[in-house]
Amino acid sequence: MSKHFTALAELSVPTIMALLDRAQYFFHQSPSNLHKVLEHKVIANVFFEPSTRTRISFEMAAKRLGADVINFDLSNSSVKKGESLYDTLRTLEAIGSDALVLRHSDDRIFETLGPKLNAPLVNAGAGKNEHPSQGLLDLFTLQREFGRVDGLHIAILGDIRHSRVAGTMMLVASRLGMKVSLCSAKEFLPSEIPQGCVVEELDKVLPEVDAVMCLRNQFERHEGLDMSYEDFHRNWGLTVERAKKMRPRAIIMHPAPINRGVEIADELVEAPSSRIFRQMENGVFVRMSILEWILRKGN
Amino acid sequence: MSKHFTALAELSVPTIMALLDRAQYFFHQSPSNLHKVLEHKVIANVFFEPSTRTRISFEMAAKRLGADVINFDLSNSSVKKGESLYDTLRTLEAIGSDALVLRHSDDRIFETLGPKLNAPLVNAGAGKNEHPSQGLLDLFTLQREFGRVDGLHIAILGDIRHSRVAGTMMLVASRLGMKVSLCSAKEFLPSEIPQGCVVEELDKVLPEVDAVMCLRNQFERHEGLDMSYEDFHRNWGLTVERAKKMRPRAIIMHPAPINRGVEIADELVEAPSSRIFRQMENGVFVRMSILEWILRKGN
Amino acid sequence: MSKHFTALAELSVPTIMALLDRAQYFFHQSPSNLHKVLEHKVIANVFFEPSTRTRISFEMAAKRLGADVINFDLSNSSVKKGESLYDTLRTLEAIGSDALVLRHSDDRIFETLGPKLNAPLVNAGAGKNEHPSQGLLDLFTLQREFGRVDGLHIAILGDIRHSRVAGTMMLVASRLGMKVSLCSAKEFLPSEIPQGCVVEELDKVLPEVDAVMCLRNQFERHEGLDMSYEDFHRNWGLTVERAKKMRPRAIIMHPAPINRGVEIADELVEAPSSRIFRQMENGVFVRMSILEWILRKGN
Repeated sequence: MSKHFTALAELSVPTIMALLDRAQYFFHQSPSNLHKVLEHKVIANVFFEPSTRTRISFEMAAKRLGADVINFDLSNSSVKKGESLYDTLRTLEAIGSDALVLRHSDDRIFETLGPKLNAPLVNAGAGKNEHPSQGLLDLFTLQREFGRVDGLHIAILGDIRHSRVAGTMMLVASRLGMKVSLCSAKEFLPSEIPQGCVVEELDKVLPEVDAVMCLRNQFERHEGLDMSYEDFHRNWGLTVERAKKMRPRAIIMHPAPINRGVEIADELVEAPSSRIFRQMENGVFVRMSILEWILRKGN
Repeated sequence: MSKHFTALAELSVPTIMALLDRAQYFFHQSPSNLHKVLEHKVIANVFFEPSTRTRISFEMAAKRLGADVINFDLSNSSVKKGESLYDTLRTLEAIGSDALVLRHSDDRIFETLGPKLNAPLVNAGAGKNEHPSQGLLDLFTLQREFGRVDGLHIAILGDIRHSRVAGTMMLVASRLGMKVSLCSAKEFLPSEIPQGCVVEELDKVLPEVDAVMCLRNQFERHEGLDMSYEDFHRNWGLTVERAKKMRPRAIIMHPAPINRGVEIADELVEAPSSRIFRQMENGVFVRMSILEWILRKGN
Repeated sequence: MSKHFTALAELSVPTIMALLDRAQYFFHQSPSNLHKVLEHKVIANVFFEPSTRTRISFEMAAKRLGADVINFDLSNSSVKKGESLYDTLRTLEAIGSDALVLRHSDDRIFETLGPKLNAPLVNAGAGKNEHPSQGLLDLFTLQREFGRVDGLHIAILGDIRHSRVAGTMMLVASRLGMKVSLCSAKEFLPSEIPQGCVVEELDKVLPEVDAVMCLRNQFERHEGLDMSYEDFHRNWGLTVERAKKMRPRAIIMHPAPINRGVEIADELVEAPSSRIFRQMENGVFVRMSILEWILRKGN
């Protein structure tokens, strides 16, 4: 088993469930009672793409467990690829980082650099495919709500094609016994539909799902797309009207940042059924779980 | 009473005096004896305008009390207003920030966002009106010097109109029994003179005041102003000659950054009567006082 | 003796040896057993030139000894010289920094500002002459390898003229009983050859030296230079062929960042004889030694 944390697709179901259980444990502890299991450890946050939310969430998780954090923001740096990236990571390792939390635009970075490094790498969002800590927090949000993930049915809407959040969820859902409906304009659907996922009409599945996961629409990534934000919202977004069709206990999720009025109506962001800010809270618990797992495996 | 720390104008005189007393207490403690009353708390520094001095002063204050600090520099960010600003603050709250120390150019941000947030906001300089932690450190500097603020007479010179430091002081001075003389060119005077403040000739009041508070001149904010730095210094600045007219125990103050040779002569910055760097030292003690107050009120 | 740490050239040989011995001690301690000798101390990292490697190395060193660190990145700031630089450092001192770790492009900054500050300054690379913490880590790397520095022979190649790393080494080598051979194109040699250093053919000295120190080539600093990277590598760089001429126990060093294929062949960076990443590891130990020394001298 790899010492890195690169993709939920690489983890067994029992491992994923164990990480969720541990997040549940951390959720129930008060900060002052928490055993500082990572005291004297140093976590380096190495971000080649800006993402303050994820960076701060990992920082908070590390500090709650007693670790020190070194932030290394390279989003404006020229050190982005090839040998110099490797030299940078090896340097951080040599200087004493016990784990490297990495965000980068290249999909293959874990594949190419992982085997050459001694310190474990944690994928904080790399390339277009996986964003596993976000995937885990989505699963934990569902489990905290429903007591399980097995048997749940979720609808995903918005820009599914360009979302590594959706990518992560689609890759693990069927293994975890979940049903995923993809509900978006064809331009926003993935070119290949993963196993266990079905393309469906949003209006049709809404009365059946346990959760709607809205994704940020990045129109700027769709050259030549003839669709306004208003069009998207009316035809494919979670409008106030549509949300009324959801079951009473069904929840609304969004990984943020939010385009209010595009993939989701402004009024729904903090509706009683929304768990959007709860997801951010949960992010810290799952990242504590990930960091502890990655750093204590070898002990 | 609001859970936020937004303006000295909103605090009662006994509360202001209690904050000053507590700063006095912290001043007398050595760092190693200090009880870590904010251990396990997390303070987020959220700066939409650059201000390293104030940011570091809050960071130092938080760390001395045992809190962890997360720095969130958004001065170059697009996230500056409206919903996205709200989403950013809610995110920091969800991730586990116990207090949000906020600097922003908009005067109304505390009014509009304060009621929607659970975590207390601390005004680290917002808009044009108030900079309450600076105001408190000015008061503490006076109290540390004279043993009281009641009955003191201070002269303010420099760009009073554009200074939130002056704004804060002018708003509380009369309630605290202080007399304030405003001494500047008419272009630099506020459009309305607050209660308890009097416009006067600098040369006339200098022999009577307990302190001269010099403010940075921001000529770039005065379009069409026909006045050189030299003119200003000669006519309205604290020159070496003028300083000789001050009473033996009177002190010189400046919130920094300093334009040496404009509002104050270079030679006076570290003259025996200057408390300019002492003010910065004092800033940490009053910010400890503010953070403790805001975070322990609810307990 | 100055309270600042500005140059190895200013330190006595016994002091340098004592700093190396202390680094050796820190190297043998596990992080969890280390006595937090700098607890309650605050180190400010003040960087007017970007240098993440050195900044993080000092940050790690400070944290291992229990100190808090405040990072103050001014590489994009206008506050770079004259009075405003002095005001900035005095401010950091007033706010409670116990030591100021400073990187700046001006050679004379320690000379002009040092005497005016109470807090000790630590040179983290200033001007063109000295980079004493790097010099100390090079010495420590040699001592960790050979058990001594006295009697060692090292060759330096690459852009010696523009290297403050080379500058530091050339200034102390003869005092420490080391022999230094300078092996580079005449354009890259210093205008004056320091005492104890000799200009020699790389191919001639390679079979005799204990270490080869490669320096980054900064062609952009040589206007009108008619030489390609390939030319430099072939004629003056450490090629794979040349490295074969080294003695079995001789080691390869480089302060990084590395131009692979210019001053050193790509394949040699992590060859068994390379100590390049070991140097970075050693950097933390010598900086612990420096910070402890500078902060505990007065106690």
